[in-house]
Amino acid sequence: MNPPIRLGVIGTGRIGRLHTEHLALRISGAKVAAVSDVVLAAAEKCAADFGVPSATSDHRRLLDDPAINAVVICSSTDTHAGLIAEAAAAGKHIFCEKPIALELAAIDRALAAVAQAGVKLQIGFNRRFDANYRRVAELIRQGRLGDPHLLRITSRDPAPPPITYVKVSGGLFLDMMIHDFDMARFLIGSEVDEVYTLAAVRVDPAIGQAGDVDTAVVALQFENGVIGTIDNSRRAVFGYDQRVEVFGAKGMAETSNNYPNSVVVSGPEAIARDLPLNFFLDRYIDSYVAELTEFVRCVAQDRPPPVTGIDGRRPVQIGMAARRSLDLHRPVKVAEIQ
Amino acid sequence: MNPPIRLGVIGTGRIGRLHTEHLALRISGAKVAAVSDVVLAAAEKCAADFGVPSATSDHRRLLDDPAINAVVICSSTDTHAGLIAEAAAAGKHIFCEKPIALELAAIDRALAAVAQAGVKLQIGFNRRFDANYRRVAELIRQGRLGDPHLLRITSRDPAPPPITYVKVSGGLFLDMMIHDFDMARFLIGSEVDEVYTLAAVRVDPAIGQAGDVDTAVVALQFENGVIGTIDNSRRAVFGYDQRVEVFGAKGMAETSNNYPNSVVVSGPEAIARDLPLNFFLDRYIDSYVAELTEFVRCVAQDRPPPVTGIDGRRPVQIGMAARRSLDLHRPVKVAEIQ
Amino acid sequence: MNPPIRLGVIGTGRIGRLHTEHLALRISGAKVAAVSDVVLAAAEKCAADFGVPSATSDHRRLLDDPAINAVVICSSTDTHAGLIAEAAAAGKHIFCEKPIALELAAIDRALAAVAQAGVKLQIGFNRRFDANYRRVAELIRQGRLGDPHLLRITSRDPAPPPITYVKVSGGLFLDMMIHDFDMARFLIGSEVDEVYTLAAVRVDPAIGQAGDVDTAVVALQFENGVIGTIDNSRRAVFGYDQRVEVFGAKGMAETSNNYPNSVVVSGPEAIARDLPLNFFLDRYIDSYVAELTEFVRCVAQDRPPPVTGIDGRRPVQIGMAARRSLDLHRPVKVAEIQ
Amino acid sequence: MNPPIRLGVIGTGRIGRLHTEHLALRISGAKVAAVSDVVLAAAEKCAADFGVPSATSDHRRLLDDPAINAVVICSSTDTHAGLIAEAAAAGKHIFCEKPIALELAAIDRALAAVAQAGVKLQIGFNRRFDANYRRVAELIRQGRLGDPHLLRITSRDPAPPPITYVKVSGGLFLDMMIHDFDMARFLIGSEVDEVYTLAAVRVDPAIGQAGDVDTAVVALQFENGVIGTIDNSRRAVFGYDQRVEVFGAKGMAETSNNYPNSVVVSGPEAIARDLPLNFFLDRYIDSYVAELTEFVRCVAQDRPPPVTGIDGRRPVQIGMAARRSLDLHRPVKVAEIQ
Repeated sequence: MNPPIRLGVIGTGRIGRLHTEHLALRISGAKVAAVSDVVLAAAEKCAADFGVPSATSDHRRLLDDPAINAVVICSSTDTHAGLIAEAAAAGKHIFCEKPIALELAAIDRALAAVAQAGVKLQIGFNRRFDANYRRVAELIRQGRLGDPHLLRITSRDPAPPPITYVKVSGGLFLDMMIHDFDMARFLIGSEVDEVYTLAAVRVDPAIGQAGDVDTAVVALQFENGVIGTIDNSRRAVFGYDQRVEVFGAKGMAETSNNYPNSVVVSGPEAIARDLPLNFFLDRYIDSYVAELTEFVRCVAQDRPPPVTGIDGRRPVQIGMAARRSLDLHRPVKVAEIQ
Repeated sequence: MNPPIRLGVIGTGRIGRLHTEHLALRISGAKVAAVSDVVLAAAEKCAADFGVPSATSDHRRLLDDPAINAVVICSSTDTHAGLIAEAAAAGKHIFCEKPIALELAAIDRALAAVAQAGVKLQIGFNRRFDANYRRVAELIRQGRLGDPHLLRITSRDPAPPPITYVKVSGGLFLDMMIHDFDMARFLIGSEVDEVYTLAAVRVDPAIGQAGDVDTAVVALQFENGVIGTIDNSRRAVFGYDQRVEVFGAKGMAETSNNYPNSVVVSGPEAIARDLPLNFFLDRYIDSYVAELTEFVRCVAQDRPPPVTGIDGRRPVQIGMAARRSLDLHRPVKVAEIQ
Repeated sequence: MNPPIRLGVIGTGRIGRLHTEHLALRISGAKVAAVSDVVLAAAEKCAADFGVPSATSDHRRLLDDPAINAVVICSSTDTHAGLIAEAAAAGKHIFCEKPIALELAAIDRALAAVAQAGVKLQIGFNRRFDANYRRVAELIRQGRLGDPHLLRITSRDPAPPPITYVKVSGGLFLDMMIHDFDMARFLIGSEVDEVYTLAAVRVDPAIGQAGDVDTAVVALQFENGVIGTIDNSRRAVFGYDQRVEVFGAKGMAETSNNYPNSVVVSGPEAIARDLPLNFFLDRYIDSYVAELTEFVRCVAQDRPPPVTGIDGRRPVQIGMAARRSLDLHRPVKVAEIQ
Repeated sequence: MNPPIRLGVIGTGRIGRLHTEHLALRISGAKVAAVSDVVLAAAEKCAADFGVPSATSDHRRLLDDPAINAVVICSSTDTHAGLIAEAAAAGKHIFCEKPIALELAAIDRALAAVAQAGVKLQIGFNRRFDANYRRVAELIRQGRLGDPHLLRITSRDPAPPPITYVKVSGGLFLDMMIHDFDMARFLIGSEVDEVYTLAAVRVDPAIGQAGDVDTAVVALQFENGVIGTIDNSRRAVFGYDQRVEVFGAKGMAETSNNYPNSVVVSGPEAIARDLPLNFFLDRYIDSYVAELTEFVRCVAQDRPPPVTGIDGRRPVQIGMAARRSLDLHRPVKVAEIQ
């Protein structure tokens, strides 16, 4: 048996703690050697909770440690691109949360650093590792659906984030629908050529005052001829609404939401079941374990990671095109965005 | 095209009116020549509503009419056996509502008369013609489920009938579960050898005071080795609950209830749909059309009807065995009942 | 009880025969007094099959008959507008199959004739009377879903029509999606302000050679702020795919397809059920009865019909806008089409 | 924060390894101090895999270690009762896999030792901690279903165990249906008064030659009037079939199977989904974590465990009654078995 991959986790907020827990407890072949956070107490608590031997407020300590093979970047979005470049220069393999950055130039600098250093980079589009979507992708790859003709992605949150977050999020298209742009590319296996956006503020006027929308439909024209639609809402009162449908020449695949139990209650008013899982961490927990398991294996076996830097760049570009389509009220080629 | 089969309907209560309507309006090749009811006004209204040329209070008028080929017996249960014998003697083909009678001797006399006259007799076990059950039967016949091992029939009414009806109904086993005994034989294609009954009064004490039960489970041992259970309740607060499950060596088939629409509403409390169809006429309406269509065709084409006199006798016998099992608190062979 | 409404049916092709059968056999208060068809034999066969006393090749005979209260126009699309005008001039109430015409000027002339004559006109958008869609509409009207935000309509045929039909059909937007434009207006209760179309030939190149598309998505902006999408395909290999989803501030309603039975088979390969109903007449049969029942009642009770001339005009206008959007590759205001 | 509960795991076969993994990695507040197995290499591998500091072939070493608070008994069934007594005498709290023993006298001795020592004992009926069944129990406790009238438990394995196992298993009623007897008591909250059994050998004649059955239905009469049925099969070709239905005065609750994904594929032959989870460890993995989490908390907080010694004894007694009913072909009171 090979020695474990030794990882450093940069940023120990919610998602950083989750990744640390999974790497420490549930992923064989991985060892979290150190965690860092600009708030030292957060790093220390994370280290204590999950048995990590070292905690620091300075991520450079992780990058300078020759015993660390790879880093997991979970800090705030504005630091991602810079940290990728730094980590690449230090020769570390990199797992980075999405999005890489909110502008293409920064993404391109980060990817250039990765390419120059020859390290591995995996982007945290965890939904690709979800059992439902993975099964749909598999059906497509196997030809079970024939050539895909139509794609439909529904992605609705149970409640909007705080307005303070909305203001720095990059907006619905880069913060929320970016997952769906990635899913669209992942499932269809072709690039989005052009988008057209309809959007509105229907959930909370404060979101509009912050310059964003909370309800949106984007129509997608793929290079291979598939036509897609994505719809997002910041608030589905029944919980987290996450579904896809692919309609092809030989059949259709649909996913439904995930539920905490399968119980159906037949009462005098209705036939009912409990609401779907409400929180993204509950809904997608297995996919978070799976994506890091795959990253660790790719490093251990020297294979290219399944979600590349280009996979991190392209959804940002599509998101910008979607926003431009809304602003200009016309279809926008993704290639317009450079 | 052949001349239509000319039928007389005896008894124009709820089910008699329904059969008249279907024969008059929805079944090609049939013509209702006359209706009779001991309440003349009822017969006359039925005739007027569905364009029947003749109405009478005396069923003998129908039996004496040489232009009538067949009769549909929808009068009260205690008259069925006698009318079958009379109609057979008159050379009429017979469709008779279930049960033939509440005692075997009367049934045997009726069946003997039918045999002697050489007329056709079909018993009104309409559920055999329901799309769900018919499909399950077909799967079994095709071998898609392999040898059946286990059978489960659920049959629950939305609300108990009036106590006055309960008192003359023959009891839950002969009035309500008789449909399930027929379904069991129909699906499994083998005779019930022995039954064991657990039952109770849970819905309404008045039913107990009338000497009946309102909640029951009967375990069935079939001659071919299948083990079955039937459960009945006189009150399912969510509506008419009618389901079967057959589990076999190669697979399982299950039916679910029928609904007025397919709409699912996701709200802040639950994911819900409307209650299933509540009334047996709504739930089974198509099967009523189908059974009479088949009867008319059997007469027209001189084929044996699909639900025979024996099919009418056997469920009564099983129902009596089920009641005896309850009374004696032991398993009872169906052959004990003669 | 009032005397029945006496109707004449013009055109006894598939849909004309169906309407005649329903009016003759299943709708109380209606009587088909005469049928006409340019092919006399077709009219005569229809009359014979459903007990209609009169058949003719000349629809003028129906319009001239003072005993006929209303006509049902089921002839070819190019005759609809002219027949509406003629029937209105003859003082007959009118039920007309969709579309009224393939150009707005003809529609406007027909509607003007109706208005001048003061007769009733109902357009045959039968899906409004389907139990699933009616229930969704009811939920919206009751406020159960809150303000609608997003609408999704899926409408896919089991197989494309013959190319000869495609060529004269008016194209996918006016022949097929017209039902969905009507459904969109019916459910949302607001007008479509603008459309944007993505479409392609994916099913059969011959459809493209005929100048049409077979796969299309139209994004709809409603005046009340709702955003909608409609997708159509001429071929769903699993059968007739007819679903809607309305997502609102307080909840979501979804319909699913209709199936011939509810049987689920669990086998060694999969958990499976039979395909949905494949043919539009099977799927929507109840809605055909319901729309004519309502028309007959509106005439009998002197009420305005529920699907008006404007309801017949507007979907044609939207369909034209959808086609223009495809041709010009930009969003198109419905008001551009006049 | 309190010091962790220190546990010793006795027996490191499949289930022992699973419990060790969960205690070591997923249950906060627990620490596995040592593992033992009569096969030392198995204990050592388990210790190495999950970071347990000590491994031994002698369970006495664990019982003698004053730093160990509790033991988890996962050895073969015939050792359970003796180990419980030993562990109780050593003052250890005890989690023991089901069944305690295959005879009541041995169970009673073990329970007496537990009572005398005043230690806690929890039996490993993990299904009580499954999200589906827990939700049904909650609905009953909340009165949402009203008084229960009927209970139905389906429990079918994907494939029979090896015949060598069948021979020592105690038979279907004590090895397999014991879980369902526990579930019946757990859900209904009342004792089973009497049972009646129908059973057969349908899956594999070798099972019959080993003196056991592979297909069985047991009808249950509860003290509180509920009527129940349990059916078991050793082979469901579609996978692990685990469902319950509770029908009560105010409503019904049903669970369905658990699936690896929610994808529905509509193809030209059928509408299909993947088979349910096939393996009990996949299906019930969360319940295994939950039961041990609860045990650890009960020890830490000095609360009585939720599944008691009586809960371990009673299902064995019911299982014996079920077997006797089969042998004697009559209903059997559970109280007959002493």
